Amino acid sequence: MADKPLRIAVVLSGCGVYDGAEIHEAVCTLLAISRAGAEAACFAPNVPQAHVVNHLTGEEAAETRNVLAESARIARGKVADLAGFDAAAVDALIFPGGFGAAKNLCDFAFKGPDCTVNPDVEKAVRAMRDAGKPIGALCIAPAILATLLGAEGVELTIGSDAGTAAALESLGAKHRVTGHGAIVIDQRLKVVTSPCYMLDASLAQIAEGAENTVRALIELAR
Amino acid sequence: MADKPLRIAVVLSGCGVYDGAEIHEAVCTLLAISRAGAEAACFAPNVPQAHVVNHLTGEEAAETRNVLAESARIARGKVADLAGFDAAAVDALIFPGGFGAAKNLCDFAFKGPDCTVNPDVEKAVRAMRDAGKPIGALCIAPAILATLLGAEGVELTIGSDAGTAAALESLGAKHRVTGHGAIVIDQRLKVVTSPCYMLDASLAQIAEGAENTVRALIELAR
Repeated sequence: MADKPLRIAVVLSGCGVYDGAEIHEAVCTLLAISRAGAEAACFAPNVPQAHVVNHLTGEEAAETRNVLAESARIARGKVADLAGFDAAAVDALIFPGGFGAAKNLCDFAFKGPDCTVNPDVEKAVRAMRDAGKPIGALCIAPAILATLLGAEGVELTIGSDAGTAAALESLGAKHRVTGHGAIVIDQRLKVVTSPCYMLDASLAQIAEGAENTVRALIELAR
Repeated sequence: MADKPLRIAVVLSGCGVYDGAEIHEAVCTLLAISRAGAEAACFAPNVPQAHVVNHLTGEEAAETRNVLAESARIARGKVADLAGFDAAAVDALIFPGGFGAAKNLCDFAFKGPDCTVNPDVEKAVRAMRDAGKPIGALCIAPAILATLLGAEGVELTIGSDAGTAAALESLGAKHRVTGHGAIVIDQRLKVVTSPCYMLDASLAQIAEGAENTVRALIELAR
C-alpha cells in the first residue's frame, strides 16, 4: 500500500506583503508542497486585518478587510478558520512571511518583543510542539516562534537584519545569520526557518528558500 | 559583453482568481521569468474591478477595488499603469489567467464572444503584434487574444472546455485541445498559450504550464 501523502498546514495572514501574507512566499510554499507530493491545508485566523495598505502608494486605506477572507484569495477559496485547527490531522505546519505575520498573526510589527500572539496561532503552535511535529516559518514569521518558543531557546533565522535579530534574541531565541535560500534547522524543537524577503531577494531565491524549508519539514515529519 | 536580460511584460488584472488575476498563475509566471534570468515588468489597467468577490464565500461583496492597486499586491508595489506601456521597451508580453482577465481586461466572462477589450489592453497587444514580438496567455486569458487576433486566425488553447473553445472559434481562432502543462505555439503570430487552471490542475502542473510558456516566449523573442 502506498504511503498516505503528508499533510502540511499553511497558515496565511491575508493577501499582500504590506498588510497580509507575502504572496510570493505563500505560493512558493504551496508549490514546494505540491511538487513534493504532499498535501497543503490552508488556515487563517478569522479576524480583521490590523489595517489595509494600498500596495501601489504604500498608504493606509480607510477600509477594513478580514484575514480569513483575504487569505482565501491565495488559497482559491480552500482555507479553514484556524480556530478549528487540529494538530492530529496534519504532519507539519508552516508560516509564510509578509507583514501580515507580524501585524495580524501577532503584533511584532507594532510592539517588537513586547508583542502578543493571536490566540488561535498560539494554540496551533503549542499543539504542534506538544505533538512533537515540525513547524516552519519564513521571512519575519519566525518572530511568532521567538515569542512562543523563546523560553525554550529556539534556534532560528530572519536573515541578517541586526535590529530584528536582537529583538528575537531578547525573547530567548538563538539567531543565526543566513543568506539567500539558506535554512536553519532546530533539530531539538523541530523548527525550520528561512529569511526569504527579509533579504533583498529575487523570486527564484524565494522559491529556493521555500523549497528547502518544506523539504526539511518533510524530513522531520517522517 | 553579456547580453542584456530579456524584459517580459506581465499584465495583471487584480489579485484573486474570482475577480482578478489568478495568483498561482501570476506568481508561477514571475518565478519562471526570474529562473530564466529574464526581467519581469508588471502592468495593469488603472480601472475599477468589474466587481469584488469574497473568495471565502464566493459571494459578491458591496465594495469597489481598483485593478492597478490590487495588482500591486502580487507585484509587491512594482506595477505600472498599462496606459504607459511601450512595446519598444519589452521583448515579450504575457497575460496570466483568472477571472480578472475575462472581467477586467475584457468582458468575455459576461458577454462571451460579443465581448469588448479594455482599450489599454488592446493597444498593448496590437503594438506587440505590429512589432512582431511574442505574446503569451494562460488559462482563460487567450479569450483576449481570440477577440483581438481572431480575424488573423490565431491558433491557441484554453484546454478542453468545449463551450469556451467554441466561443473562441466563433471569433476566428483555431482552438487546440491540450492537457496539463502543454502549450500551443502559433509560430506565425508568435502567440503561446497554456490551459493552466482551465483544467482541474495541481499547483505543480500550473508551474509547469507557466514555465513552458515563458520558455517558448523567450525562444520566440531571441
